[in-house]
Amino acid sequence: MSQSDQFNQIERYEALMDVVRNRLTNRAFDANYEVPKEHYELIIEAARHGPSGANAQPWHYIVITQPDMKQKLADSFVTEQTKRAKMGMKFPTPNYRGMATAPGLVLVAADFRFIKAFPVFNDDSELDKHYKVNAERILLQSVAASVMSAHLAAAALGYAVWWVTAIGQEEIQEQFKPLIGLPEELSVIDIMCFGPPKKESYKRWRRELPEIMNYDTFNMDNFWTDEMIDEWIKTKRHRVMYRDANNID
Amino acid sequence: MSQSDQFNQIERYEALMDVVRNRLTNRAFDANYEVPKEHYELIIEAARHGPSGANAQPWHYIVITQPDMKQKLADSFVTEQTKRAKMGMKFPTPNYRGMATAPGLVLVAADFRFIKAFPVFNDDSELDKHYKVNAERILLQSVAASVMSAHLAAAALGYAVWWVTAIGQEEIQEQFKPLIGLPEELSVIDIMCFGPPKKESYKRWRRELPEIMNYDTFNMDNFWTDEMIDEWIKTKRHRVMYRDANNID
Repeated sequence: MSQSDQFNQIERYEALMDVVRNRLTNRAFDANYEVPKEHYELIIEAARHGPSGANAQPWHYIVITQPDMKQKLADSFVTEQTKRAKMGMKFPTPNYRGMATAPGLVLVAADFRFIKAFPVFNDDSELDKHYKVNAERILLQSVAASVMSAHLAAAALGYAVWWVTAIGQEEIQEQFKPLIGLPEELSVIDIMCFGPPKKESYKRWRRELPEIMNYDTFNMDNFWTDEMIDEWIKTKRHRVMYRDANNID
Repeated sequence: MSQSDQFNQIERYEALMDVVRNRLTNRAFDANYEVPKEHYELIIEAARHGPSGANAQPWHYIVITQPDMKQKLADSFVTEQTKRAKMGMKFPTPNYRGMATAPGLVLVAADFRFIKAFPVFNDDSELDKHYKVNAERILLQSVAASVMSAHLAAAALGYAVWWVTAIGQEEIQEQFKPLIGLPEELSVIDIMCFGPPKKESYKRWRRELPEIMNYDTFNMDNFWTDEMIDEWIKTKRHRVMYRDANNID
């Protein structure tokens, strides 16, 4: 292959983008569908190749197959949702009941102890604390890169996906760690749901390319003031979270 | 398509995995290669579709084309590297000089202000602080999911990649924000390097699938004690970070 062909594999790129563009979120699934066991393996095989700080791979995937466990998870998220609403949180929480309908449900556990394997001093000095803030960011980004690969794999197979980042973590963790035998040292930071969607999925709003892309200097046209963010939260957030991109205005 | 075909698109999965498995890290590039402008667009187009908390898409990509800027970035990382070594940090830092050789270099800026668009109270209460810890995690994972898509796109085109998570952030940010006109409100959290590798890339160690995959209950065979982690840091980390997987023992 010539150099220009070797680094211009457009067909390969398009095959990837067919998955990237069509990784569609859904929050209710066909509960009667059974995920073939090999699909779990195919999906977590993708996660296995994720890049990570110090190549530590600080992740574990726990496939939940038991319907009563899924129901319990959904229930605890609904409880959290109710609690928040009572306390006056204005966030337009999704309907977590859909978690119980997910034929595929995988808990993602992070091992935060690997922070000590990253660029830190491990001597509890002020400087160490400074580096540990960065190190925790490295760990979270590492796990997310792995989870993203899993989501793309599920989407490639044809499934709708739902990436749940844990809420009210401590309470939910205390409840669930014993049920799945997860040691204290590990933390469930994401839940991945997938399966055939109950109703057809649709594409949600994305910023246009020029809004996020800049050459050499940041284009101030792309900057949102605090007021713009507040306005977006008030008038757009619930639409871009739940509606078809063609129907947000 | 029958349901079993619709959710069993193995060819599509294999096309994705051809990229996922071959997203290879390299830390020195062919500095004479010029990235076609459309490749930057193809790569950031992938990043654009990343999932995010509240669909906020709190990311900006700044393509750096000027060689003197790349050199300055590399220099500041080398300075940080030297500082760390002097202070006795034992982390086997990569050779950041390679950053200056990257034909493709893209800064990733996160907008942490979007944390207020996530499930939080925004009232500075103790409870709010608790939710904000989670919210920052959601933001970091969102940005990482977007960056991972960009890395896969670059790998699909045929490039070697290098995901640099910022080190000594504050100092480097103070130095670089004015140079690229980045407002105070945004933070550079990752640097993405890509291009034809100087020497051939190779696959690094990955845990085997059964080591990260669990059904219904966590398999304690997959648990690493603190002692195992310490031993891994001492005897394996530098090997798995820099060597070919076939040559780590």
